[in-house]
Amino acid sequence: MMLPFDILEYHERLEKTKKRMEEKGVEVLLITDPANMNYLSGYDAWSFYVHQMLVIIIDEAQPLWIGRFQDANGARKTTWIYDENVIAYPDYYVHSAIYHPMDFIAEILTQIGQGNRTIGVEMDNYYFSAKAFEQLKNNLPNATFKNADLLVNGVRIVKSDQEIEYMKRAAIIAEHAMEKGIESIYAGAKESDVAATIYYHLVKGSNGHGGDYPSIVPLLPAGENTCTPHLTWSERAFMSGEAVIIELAGCYKRYHVPLARTVSIGTPSEEMTTLSPIVTEGIQEVLASIKPGITCGDIEETWRKSIKKYGMEKESRLGYSVGLGYPPDWGEHTASLRKGDQTVLEPNMTFHLIPGLWFDNYGIEISETFRVTDTGCERFTNYPQGLIVRDPLNINPTDKIS
Amino acid sequence: MMLPFDILEYHERLEKTKKRMEEKGVEVLLITDPANMNYLSGYDAWSFYVHQMLVIIIDEAQPLWIGRFQDANGARKTTWIYDENVIAYPDYYVHSAIYHPMDFIAEILTQIGQGNRTIGVEMDNYYFSAKAFEQLKNNLPNATFKNADLLVNGVRIVKSDQEIEYMKRAAIIAEHAMEKGIESIYAGAKESDVAATIYYHLVKGSNGHGGDYPSIVPLLPAGENTCTPHLTWSERAFMSGEAVIIELAGCYKRYHVPLARTVSIGTPSEEMTTLSPIVTEGIQEVLASIKPGITCGDIEETWRKSIKKYGMEKESRLGYSVGLGYPPDWGEHTASLRKGDQTVLEPNMTFHLIPGLWFDNYGIEISETFRVTDTGCERFTNYPQGLIVRDPLNINPTDKIS
Repeated sequence: MMLPFDILEYHERLEKTKKRMEEKGVEVLLITDPANMNYLSGYDAWSFYVHQMLVIIIDEAQPLWIGRFQDANGARKTTWIYDENVIAYPDYYVHSAIYHPMDFIAEILTQIGQGNRTIGVEMDNYYFSAKAFEQLKNNLPNATFKNADLLVNGVRIVKSDQEIEYMKRAAIIAEHAMEKGIESIYAGAKESDVAATIYYHLVKGSNGHGGDYPSIVPLLPAGENTCTPHLTWSERAFMSGEAVIIELAGCYKRYHVPLARTVSIGTPSEEMTTLSPIVTEGIQEVLASIKPGITCGDIEETWRKSIKKYGMEKESRLGYSVGLGYPPDWGEHTASLRKGDQTVLEPNMTFHLIPGLWFDNYGIEISETFRVTDTGCERFTNYPQGLIVRDPLNINPTDKIS
Repeated sequence: MMLPFDILEYHERLEKTKKRMEEKGVEVLLITDPANMNYLSGYDAWSFYVHQMLVIIIDEAQPLWIGRFQDANGARKTTWIYDENVIAYPDYYVHSAIYHPMDFIAEILTQIGQGNRTIGVEMDNYYFSAKAFEQLKNNLPNATFKNADLLVNGVRIVKSDQEIEYMKRAAIIAEHAMEKGIESIYAGAKESDVAATIYYHLVKGSNGHGGDYPSIVPLLPAGENTCTPHLTWSERAFMSGEAVIIELAGCYKRYHVPLARTVSIGTPSEEMTTLSPIVTEGIQEVLASIKPGITCGDIEETWRKSIKKYGMEKESRLGYSVGLGYPPDWGEHTASLRKGDQTVLEPNMTFHLIPGLWFDNYGIEISETFRVTDTGCERFTNYPQGLIVRDPLNINPTDKIS
């Protein structure tokens, strides 16, 4: 299987990681975040529902992959790691009341002489449970544990040109799926049918590039549910006069470009008519302000001043660093576009700017994913920004699949 | 929003949970598994990428939902919990280096007088990280913590008639998506195109019922990759003579019915021709043996004897309890169909029997999801079991979407 990046790029990522390990005093890094495992090794499979990890030892050239026996072939196929560094635990460790994979992993670490070192763990990752940590601590009494959460994510925040290229492909997929999704909305269409159309185009891809699965499903709250950003679709039919929010991401080789738009089925409500130009003006002012050297907090300030002119405030963050990801999130969990975030922008950082506004009975989302350039920023997608109005009776006959 | 189950069913689930809490000496149960949150409260949203929980207090009638401010409307809309029991933390707790949601949650527990009780936590759940546990322990020095992993999952293992009805709808969706997926396979079709077609039908649904997103994406390893069950699709084109494994699940209101089949594009290889009747014979013998009162271990024994006739062995488990789920898994993590599992079958337990066989360069998967009945078992789907042979040149013109 072809690696998605040159082997030199993986080596460079590993070197940057080791440099951070050294700075933090971490000798052995246990990586359980599937995005970080992929970033450093290329490993790509839906096997993260069982315990697995990549082990980076500061004075060894090759990482170790440790996971389930039936997934080891996948590690050999999708990574640049030598076969002898792929270590598998037997299946009786999976979802067992007696055996825990971390017992096996601790035993391996001990056998290879790493059991008494300073071990970094990703403390707040979905795939490093409280139990996983307990078992490691119990089985490695001579180790010193350090929180190495987001250590690799910090390396990931600045993208390479090849990563940007993959995000550009993801952007084309996102735009195309958004267009097809919006075309399939009319009064009487079922939410699940629109979600199906969006999913089809996200996975089929566009422009000759097949899509990967996004880390979050397409979200499309409608009507009163627009007040809540994370509700998923139902079997309900859209109604004339309703607003629909579509938030999706194109994904290419696990790189995401999210995109959100708000659609009105028929004449928009007064609220939507008022809100949408406030949001787009804010987005434009924010994008115009972005350049290397300013902080994420500065971005929030520009936004805050922009909407304050209209007497508005926003409680939640405006966005976050985005790129490589696995379910349940495409955000990188490092920089957030919010008050007080001191992250200084550098070229090839990438963010999803999603200044959603939610009220008791309605809400609006319009978003842009952008890359910081040498002098400013550029949007990945080029989709019309304003409120999109659909004819409620416009059933698009080309959106049928047998 | 309509709850998917009668309020009495939720009360019954809560009572069963409290009974188990009492048996385990747990006074306060912190539920972070999204499937368990849904099971007890109805809560359904893609918000599990931030910390959230349901709190069950043994001597209080209502659970508490605690989560992110922008998700609280969703909790009010999708659950039977009173609005005053929906508690939200501010957005600056999200993915912050300074604030942690568990600090907020600990403070709430202290304020309502629960800080000095015996608190059960789901130690090995994806959504209860090592850090989450550390923060709770630091902030609740007077509490006693107990591992309550799988406590609610244990209640979930026997389904109600309404749950079975939802699984039957999921089964119809699974069969339909399998059929459409297989029809879209030919030599030259891209893996991503076939995955797109399967996804479309899984979400669109069938028989008037819209589909929900499955907890695992459709898996379709082909050719040499059939040796590895959890690789996802690529942009590669299928080739004549290759085998393709399709593993998918229909999902209805978060209830899953998985289904796996193996397809040969053109004349099957000798290995596939030999293996497929061994696997189907084993499945038939296993299904014929199932009835209330036997154990999951007994099922494995039947399988082991069946394939031993042909000199074969299987390292990994044969299957697992299945039903309600959220990414990254549709398995319930309780009973496994494997040697030594003492779980005694009861009517309305539901399992995914997936006796996959994987070798160095090829593999086969044929599966059935079944329900234990009063006297035996019944399959949810009725899809032909043997190896499916596709004409490599058979491009199905009805499988196009504009």
